[in-house]
Amino acid sequence: MSRVAAAYPADRVSLREVGLRDGLQLVNAWPSTDEKREWLTREHAAGVRHFEVGSFLPASRMPQFADVRQMIDMVSGLDHARSAALALNERGLADAFETEVDEVVCVISATEEHSQANMRRSRVEAIDLVRMAARMRDERGHKAIVNAGIAMAFGCSITGKVDQAEVLRLAGGCIEAGADIVGIADTVGIAGPRQVAELSAAMARLSGGGVFIVHLHDTRGMGIANASAALDAGCRVLDGSLGGLGGCPFAPGATGNVVFEDLVFLCETKGFATGIDLDALAAVRSVPEHAMPKEKFYGAIARAGPPRMLDWRA
Amino acid sequence: MSRVAAAYPADRVSLREVGLRDGLQLVNAWPSTDEKREWLTREHAAGVRHFEVGSFLPASRMPQFADVRQMIDMVSGLDHARSAALALNERGLADAFETEVDEVVCVISATEEHSQANMRRSRVEAIDLVRMAARMRDERGHKAIVNAGIAMAFGCSITGKVDQAEVLRLAGGCIEAGADIVGIADTVGIAGPRQVAELSAAMARLSGGGVFIVHLHDTRGMGIANASAALDAGCRVLDGSLGGLGGCPFAPGATGNVVFEDLVFLCETKGFATGIDLDALAAVRSVPEHAMPKEKFYGAIARAGPPRMLDWRA
Repeated sequence: MSRVAAAYPADRVSLREVGLRDGLQLVNAWPSTDEKREWLTREHAAGVRHFEVGSFLPASRMPQFADVRQMIDMVSGLDHARSAALALNERGLADAFETEVDEVVCVISATEEHSQANMRRSRVEAIDLVRMAARMRDERGHKAIVNAGIAMAFGCSITGKVDQAEVLRLAGGCIEAGADIVGIADTVGIAGPRQVAELSAAMARLSGGGVFIVHLHDTRGMGIANASAALDAGCRVLDGSLGGLGGCPFAPGATGNVVFEDLVFLCETKGFATGIDLDALAAVRSVPEHAMPKEKFYGAIARAGPPRMLDWRA
Repeated sequence: MSRVAAAYPADRVSLREVGLRDGLQLVNAWPSTDEKREWLTREHAAGVRHFEVGSFLPASRMPQFADVRQMIDMVSGLDHARSAALALNERGLADAFETEVDEVVCVISATEEHSQANMRRSRVEAIDLVRMAARMRDERGHKAIVNAGIAMAFGCSITGKVDQAEVLRLAGGCIEAGADIVGIADTVGIAGPRQVAELSAAMARLSGGGVFIVHLHDTRGMGIANASAALDAGCRVLDGSLGGLGGCPFAPGATGNVVFEDLVFLCETKGFATGIDLDALAAVRSVPEHAMPKEKFYGAIARAGPPRMLDWRA
């Protein structure tokens, strides 16, 4: 079995909890390493298996991820759990491959304008980093899979409309460069379910029956509807964050990632077993809520609970 | 053209704003008639055309709807606007047909248990009231259409699971009794998009290419995803309420109806033109927010605004 098929079997849905990475990216206060450990281990006990836990960046720039190596070690100690972390340059890649990380995430912008403004490099250079990641991984005989995430895939905070054929071209470029899996991200929460369905269906064709990731933000309330559309179009790997943590610097007042708890409920009602205990999952919110009292937490399942009077699993 | 085709053309989506009825059903404080007038006229100016404005019940029981006749008169004075109001017994029907109301709404419970507990009558008696409504309407030569709404159609707060074939049987019974249009309501916000799609597709077949209504609550965060699934399955009439107003007595902490503003955004991204100005619509929230400062208002569009950097209409 290929590395990616082992990580993300095509015959079931895998949910990636990105709260410990994307959810902490813009906050002013964040949980201590011990609090992150509690967040992680309690979510794992509730059945969560995929954790994006940080970014390999200088601690001076992103102090919330200074403990990324400890987080990866923690995940390694949990049964069937998988860690993922971002690496945005050669130094980050080298650091990542010194750890037991299960997945290295590189980021490509869908538009040249956003790539230059946000990452100060071209999209070609971003894809070159994917190529470098795959090569370094192979040279070191490291186990990690390489994940290439395409930011602004549904619309860009700078250019506005994004040519969907261009996104597919970039996705193909990432695969050609050695990416094991590609993600498409609605970074600023612009998409509706029709657009998500169309691009997901094209990604399903591009990946030849393999898996790809859809990463959604709930900025305009479409998060769960978009996730549902992605699932209908063949997507089997979705990102979410506990309580919908993760703001967006380009959209003041925007909410963050699609709410993980609500995403679990959605999947179960659609007949995709997640193996996750919803009550236990929702109870984990108390950890980041305590650590980040100024953050707003979202989600309906945490407020109303799953239905008690009937079996809501399809 | 039939009355119902004139009210709800099958070739476009109609959105019914039920905030002034369902949204006020359980609140302890409500807007004055003048404040309701502002809510109504500003929404109408924003492009909203379908308003459920109250219930024909004794003012002693539901004082928030004591001005239902004035509300109906107000709607009559607005271009292309349509009023709907509930009538739950013979007296209510008689009162309704004394007004210029455009639509009389009768309610049937999907389960016998809920019908007896909530309305103290059988489902057969509830359908008899639909028959009476159609007969009284015809005897008086009144213009109103008769709408039969099936509560708990996706799951019941008493029995739990609801047999979907039974819902279709009840819907057929309502049509046979003279209902011009039938609605299916996820009263306690239990459904997921798969169930909504399946029942909506069956309702589309039952209504023979005609229209039916899907009424959703966002209790568990599935509201917009369910609306999207209903649209995909052929539904062309959806209910919503400004700010998601409308709690549920059976689910403490639950949110109310699907958020009208977010519903408009959803429809537009799917290529269904609504004719509604989203910024003007979201601005109307200040009216009920001021009148009901203790209520919680929901919705992402009101918080983040529609996207500014691109045309989000499909």
